[in-house]
Amino acid sequence: MKIGIDIGAQTIKIGTKDKKGDYKIKTGIKTGPDFIKTGEKLKGEIEKSFGRASLAVIGCFGPLDLFKKKVIKAPNLPGWVGISFRGWEKILGCPIILENDANLAIYGEAKVGAGKGYKIVSGFTLGSGVGYGCVMDGKIYHGNWDVEAGHMILDPGGPPCGCGQKGCLEAYISRLAILEKFGKEPHDLQDEKAWDWIAHKIAWGCQLVTVLVKPDTIVLCGGIAQHKGLLEKVQKCYRKMLRIYPKEASETKIVLGKYIEHAGVIGAVELLVSS
Amino acid sequence: MKIGIDIGAQTIKIGTKDKKGDYKIKTGIKTGPDFIKTGEKLKGEIEKSFGRASLAVIGCFGPLDLFKKKVIKAPNLPGWVGISFRGWEKILGCPIILENDANLAIYGEAKVGAGKGYKIVSGFTLGSGVGYGCVMDGKIYHGNWDVEAGHMILDPGGPPCGCGQKGCLEAYISRLAILEKFGKEPHDLQDEKAWDWIAHKIAWGCQLVTVLVKPDTIVLCGGIAQHKGLLEKVQKCYRKMLRIYPKEASETKIVLGKYIEHAGVIGAVELLVSS
Repeated sequence: MKIGIDIGAQTIKIGTKDKKGDYKIKTGIKTGPDFIKTGEKLKGEIEKSFGRASLAVIGCFGPLDLFKKKVIKAPNLPGWVGISFRGWEKILGCPIILENDANLAIYGEAKVGAGKGYKIVSGFTLGSGVGYGCVMDGKIYHGNWDVEAGHMILDPGGPPCGCGQKGCLEAYISRLAILEKFGKEPHDLQDEKAWDWIAHKIAWGCQLVTVLVKPDTIVLCGGIAQHKGLLEKVQKCYRKMLRIYPKEASETKIVLGKYIEHAGVIGAVELLVSS
Repeated sequence: MKIGIDIGAQTIKIGTKDKKGDYKIKTGIKTGPDFIKTGEKLKGEIEKSFGRASLAVIGCFGPLDLFKKKVIKAPNLPGWVGISFRGWEKILGCPIILENDANLAIYGEAKVGAGKGYKIVSGFTLGSGVGYGCVMDGKIYHGNWDVEAGHMILDPGGPPCGCGQKGCLEAYISRLAILEKFGKEPHDLQDEKAWDWIAHKIAWGCQLVTVLVKPDTIVLCGGIAQHKGLLEKVQKCYRKMLRIYPKEASETKIVLGKYIEHAGVIGAVELLVSS
């Protein structure tokens, strides 16, 4: 059985596609501080839910070294720094394809979600962190090394980011950054002006994506993106920030992701289909 | 004869490659306010220098509609707004391939210049305006529409840009922006602190290119890039702005263009070779 796995800092989702083409997804497996023990527990969960794994696509928080299958940094899970998923290949007894979690979420949206049918699909995942991914002609765009574009700098003198830089997009609109600035969790935040401010930062990120990547569509994924009215605010702000191209900016599709929580694991399952 | 043409707001360069593989370049043809008359004069110059044109690659300032071969905006040449190079196809008597001028300059550098041998080559042209181009696997990357990434926004409340936006990269480091801020033309500017400031803006642009495009190398072209010591300042600043990836940022090659003035026309000639 081919298994898609999405590893978050707190929980792990696993999934596969049944013979009818329906997704079977199991959530709520705890990400433990010990990498090897988490792998052993995961093996049990996979076998209980789907049977023995023959191939696994794993999406993981980063930064990652995709070639060496390594986690480079993990601020919330110090025990995971420097680990290699080659260790899990022995535990699970199958080969592992490692991917950046945001890449897989956007891949899922590009294949079967809000980006379906577009040639170049970029997107942000807005949650605990800010991820970015891009799919070109049906393939995940990797470039030269696995950079996390949530760390694009909006202001070199801006607020400190968990990564050690200042003024990264993530330092403004991650869940924690919003909590710190506005004193409320995003899902409790009802202040329209606060959401104007958040929309402005997201639109700014979309402007930078547009001028450098020139995608057909930009998909906004993750819980924060779902706030009522946010998409319209982002679209309005984005058009103002691209007033040099009034026609094209109005035509560029900024859309909400179809899969609020499961884009990552669905992306992993879809990548298995083509592996 | 296949002809490469690089159209600037003030002068036009034409070129070709002789049988030995050497570039033959003619410079100093004036860009006139009248599009048709400029084309008729250019036809004479081409025939005088190289003989009758059978195919032309034209690099032009933008924004352009590459499909319709149209100039969308031309702040310095109002008579060129909305014109189509299909008109020149009749005058020159040959098909024309239109390209963004910065794309061609980076294509020239990627094929035979400072970016030769790299898989993904991004670059800025730093002069009267700020251009950006990218070559992936030997081909110019176009994306969905011809956006000019010199208009990436560094600060939505920043100085006004000629394009109508505020705080674009071009609004900080174009020739005119430097003249306005420091009271001197870039080639007369000797203040080290001024060049630190300019380097910081270029490095910021390179940070954004890196996180979104992940190129193997970034080539800095144009007269302003050649200022002694600027490259080292940019590299130093860039590493600070990517301290999340100390290893990779040190390995990413930011280099000077090989062709100080002629990258655009050489890029046009090289594109002809593969056309």
